[in-house]
Amino acid sequence: MFEKEYDVVVVGGGHAGAEAVAAAANMGSKALLVTMNLQTIGQMSCNPAMGGIAKGQIVREIDALGGYSGIVSDKSAIQFKMLNKSKGPAMWSPRSQNDRMRFAEEWRMMLEGTPNVDFYQEMVVGLLVKGNRIAGVRTSLGLDIKAKSVVLTNGTFLNGLIHIGEKQFGGGRAGEKAATGITEQLVDLGFDSGRMKTGTPPRVDGRSLDYERMIPQPGDQFPEKFSYLDTPVLKTQRDCFMTHTSKEVHEILKEGFDRSPMFNGRIKSIGPRYCPSIEDKINRFAEKDSHQIFVEPEGWNTVEVYVNGFSTSLPEDVQYKALRTVRGFEKVKFFRPGYAIEYDYFPPTQLKHTLETKIIENLYFAGQINGTTGYEEAASQGLMAGINAHLKIHDKEPFTLQRDEAYIGVLIDDLITKGTEEPYRMFTSRAEYRTLLRQDNADLRLTPKGYEIGLASEERMRKMEEKERKSKEFVEFFRNTSFDPTDMNQILEEVESAPVKQADKMFKVFSRPKVSMEHMLQLKEVSDYVKERNIDREVMEQAEIQVKYSGYIEKEKSNADKLQRLENIRIPDNFDYTKLKSLSFEAREKLQTIRPVTISQASRISGVSPSDISVLLVFLGR
Amino acid sequence: MFEKEYDVVVVGGGHAGAEAVAAAANMGSKALLVTMNLQTIGQMSCNPAMGGIAKGQIVREIDALGGYSGIVSDKSAIQFKMLNKSKGPAMWSPRSQNDRMRFAEEWRMMLEGTPNVDFYQEMVVGLLVKGNRIAGVRTSLGLDIKAKSVVLTNGTFLNGLIHIGEKQFGGGRAGEKAATGITEQLVDLGFDSGRMKTGTPPRVDGRSLDYERMIPQPGDQFPEKFSYLDTPVLKTQRDCFMTHTSKEVHEILKEGFDRSPMFNGRIKSIGPRYCPSIEDKINRFAEKDSHQIFVEPEGWNTVEVYVNGFSTSLPEDVQYKALRTVRGFEKVKFFRPGYAIEYDYFPPTQLKHTLETKIIENLYFAGQINGTTGYEEAASQGLMAGINAHLKIHDKEPFTLQRDEAYIGVLIDDLITKGTEEPYRMFTSRAEYRTLLRQDNADLRLTPKGYEIGLASEERMRKMEEKERKSKEFVEFFRNTSFDPTDMNQILEEVESAPVKQADKMFKVFSRPKVSMEHMLQLKEVSDYVKERNIDREVMEQAEIQVKYSGYIEKEKSNADKLQRLENIRIPDNFDYTKLKSLSFEAREKLQTIRPVTISQASRISGVSPSDISVLLVFLGR
Repeated sequence: MFEKEYDVVVVGGGHAGAEAVAAAANMGSKALLVTMNLQTIGQMSCNPAMGGIAKGQIVREIDALGGYSGIVSDKSAIQFKMLNKSKGPAMWSPRSQNDRMRFAEEWRMMLEGTPNVDFYQEMVVGLLVKGNRIAGVRTSLGLDIKAKSVVLTNGTFLNGLIHIGEKQFGGGRAGEKAATGITEQLVDLGFDSGRMKTGTPPRVDGRSLDYERMIPQPGDQFPEKFSYLDTPVLKTQRDCFMTHTSKEVHEILKEGFDRSPMFNGRIKSIGPRYCPSIEDKINRFAEKDSHQIFVEPEGWNTVEVYVNGFSTSLPEDVQYKALRTVRGFEKVKFFRPGYAIEYDYFPPTQLKHTLETKIIENLYFAGQINGTTGYEEAASQGLMAGINAHLKIHDKEPFTLQRDEAYIGVLIDDLITKGTEEPYRMFTSRAEYRTLLRQDNADLRLTPKGYEIGLASEERMRKMEEKERKSKEFVEFFRNTSFDPTDMNQILEEVESAPVKQADKMFKVFSRPKVSMEHMLQLKEVSDYVKERNIDREVMEQAEIQVKYSGYIEKEKSNADKLQRLENIRIPDNFDYTKLKSLSFEAREKLQTIRPVTISQASRISGVSPSDISVLLVFLGR
Repeated sequence: MFEKEYDVVVVGGGHAGAEAVAAAANMGSKALLVTMNLQTIGQMSCNPAMGGIAKGQIVREIDALGGYSGIVSDKSAIQFKMLNKSKGPAMWSPRSQNDRMRFAEEWRMMLEGTPNVDFYQEMVVGLLVKGNRIAGVRTSLGLDIKAKSVVLTNGTFLNGLIHIGEKQFGGGRAGEKAATGITEQLVDLGFDSGRMKTGTPPRVDGRSLDYERMIPQPGDQFPEKFSYLDTPVLKTQRDCFMTHTSKEVHEILKEGFDRSPMFNGRIKSIGPRYCPSIEDKINRFAEKDSHQIFVEPEGWNTVEVYVNGFSTSLPEDVQYKALRTVRGFEKVKFFRPGYAIEYDYFPPTQLKHTLETKIIENLYFAGQINGTTGYEEAASQGLMAGINAHLKIHDKEPFTLQRDEAYIGVLIDDLITKGTEEPYRMFTSRAEYRTLLRQDNADLRLTPKGYEIGLASEERMRKMEEKERKSKEFVEFFRNTSFDPTDMNQILEEVESAPVKQADKMFKVFSRPKVSMEHMLQLKEVSDYVKERNIDREVMEQAEIQVKYSGYIEKEKSNADKLQRLENIRIPDNFDYTKLKSLSFEAREKLQTIRPVTISQASRISGVSPSDISVLLVFLGR
């Protein structure tokens, strides 16, 4: 059935797989998505939301490069919030609540609308390998699908094992079967594998909740969106709700601890530290009498509700009894209990910066298989794997992002350099240049790169250029235009800022913390400019940030440039660290395993000290 | 978690399960739907269409009684056709093509909008039985859900085994796991079980088809709909396409016969006679060089296509090679191959007319578990089981339909009286009173009954009454109103019917075969009447049928009444046939097993002769 060789075969149809196949296909590869079930493409396996702190930035980066996650999120959003709006713009993080069914449907429609994407439903049980090079995949029917490159995005399905209390079931998600065969083969090929754990809360019947007893969490009054393209803006939104656990709830949960697979040793693998189960929270923060529960609707019309913050693998009777003690949940009815799932992953130090494996050429890993957690982390890896799978087989330069260019760069560099022993999640704190990696400028940072490699569309590029040009011009306008002191002082009085004595350039006053674009728009010259030049919200935001944060931004850029010099010192491919006896033993071992590409990457490996770096620099003749 | 006892627990969320839980809940029962996966409620496992010959009538009957299938079909339709419009109105059969995703989503939304329906996702692995009475179900987690009555609607999931060529997988549907445990327990309880087989064709990528080489099959110019309520009428529609197999295609398929599970003895169970696999068709109709293939889109936007007429369990390479030889399919790409599935069923002679099992009180079976095939057959059984489960536990009279009242009556009577050894499908030919059981009058036949038991809504009842009243009045108008011979002869000339000599009642001329409502509307009196009284399409259709077919209808009614007398002779519950030695041995045995409720039912049992019936009548004192 598959006589023809595909350029790229992607295994798995989740966030990683969907982005991977779309990217490769949009760049011109003949691509195939193989999944166990074509009806579960783009499933949100856990909470019905995209983005959030640092993750929202990633979604915008994916979008800027020409990926689909932002578009799909916008089209299926039921609520939008810009988090951290009270902090500096580096912290602003977009987040949407989504209609789970719509989200999956939009993904499927986007992929079906991508000409080079083919689809096939079956379980992949093995890889075709020739020497140290991938040659395709084998399905459960014994079909061989030939491919120049393969991207594995198996999520939690590889030998997935579901735990609820003392019971265990094989399964990749509740109600879906696990995938088998791939791990065993990869281990035979020399890969290290490990087990990780993640969990999900109960899904409940919204009709059984008393929302009057909870605190409404509405979306933003003026909702923004993820995509830089013309996706729809929300006109109506659905509320989320907040409630809390109590001492009483915790006591009930504790009664089940002896039957908890987390505590009785049945689950050995490590779960996501920053998305802990409720039993974990009670255990680790014994002093806290209450934890937040964020009640998220699963869609526009459905009554199904996601109980964020109550992830658990305690016995279902304990889950039930405890949740019934939470304010507003007194009469809750379960759609299904929460559960933990253990699955295979492959320590990501076995990957190159392109997400290609070091052992098997043209084989790429993306998503949870690399030990990450989160839709956005998965999607961005899928995107990068798809891009690089395409580039490599077309004999083009690899496409990687630096740590000062994108959260995606930070993510992948962290993974392949430091590895991870617990599910890796992105945070702003992981990025040393987070002032540069803002949600507002992902297009300015990345669209030219996405365009250059043939992924971002002409339309996207033109929109970015227009935004860039208009923002610059607008900033110039503030630099060059003087204000009338009487008008200006009226504004300054309003915001309780010291009055000006005489006319000066607008830039100067606009730089003051208390003065916002909204205030500047009260000046006739500014509002005329905006009207005449058709300045939209995004350009205003961009210009405002450029004016108000130019100092910080410039400083961080110069820091990045300095470090960039180290980034530019490449270490030869076959460099033999074992012979460099002046390196510490630990450094030698780690460098030999991880094989950093640059001095900068070497410096980020834990166990490699500054003195090791000096040794390397000396040896490389610097 | 389930401390409370439910009135009705329904196992399975397909067509049968969804109707069952909705009916019980709408009548006032506290009802729970338990399914392995809440995301697959209302799945169309096979073709994306509802209705068709005899099946379309069933959908309208379900709707008339207050079921949901008609509403869901209308809301998700992408094409509508009234089949057999050139034949008499007894043969008219509505059929819709549906958007598979929308259909499932509408079902879920309808159920979520039904106040007494609760949901729970888990596999049911056993039944709770106390003595000979059901007490609930047990889930895979070991949860006991207590219930006054249980409806099993397991479809193809009970020990489901998928076959493709020489390969076999456990599974309830492609990509979904099988259900285990229930069959074994029922057999232990004394039930007979058997295996049946069904199959499904490949799903393919519409982008790979050449529709220019096929024959378009558009919907009706003026599409109708299923529901008697105010569901939307299609404004745009999607085309289906027709193509054909050829000698060459058949030759290729035959090459795979030695690897076919149908022919090498691997599949032992019997498949649906009237929905045979393509290999079956070639085998059974060796003289035919060509079979029709009906190419059905899976939705409004998706490129996925259903290849109706090409159901097969041949090896996937044979499926592929053969389908590529079909006109328009030369470049076809598979989304997934066709397959056969074997599953457990329970011979339906073990059921009462209410679909309650004879062995276990308050346990009901509906759908494929009873050996039927087809969404409509399943849905109607689910509806009747849900209704009766509710009625029984509320100490009300059972609700059954006679063979002259509904196709649903024919279906259930056939099943429980004759049993079935192959998947049972409804046909108009199975109904001896099909002139009465028309799609246009399902509301007149059944809505009063549905209303009486508290299922059909007030609105539905009022609409039916208005239609009934208006149709009767309109017929009376034709009976009582005379025409002007000049006007009338103009029409008669047009349709080439003999002219009238003088004025007469309109009814008389309207009865002529060539004269339709459309012609009558050319008479000013008629068009004035229609305008003044606001006569809609349905009333016109009803009146026309009443005028033109009154003779046939009256005759069939009187036949039905005669047989009804036998229907009214009830046989006592514990009647001991074994003592009635004058019955033939076969009759005695079958009567003892099937335990007919009336003499009429007894007469329909194969092996029970007219002389056996005479013996019974004598014995019962008639």
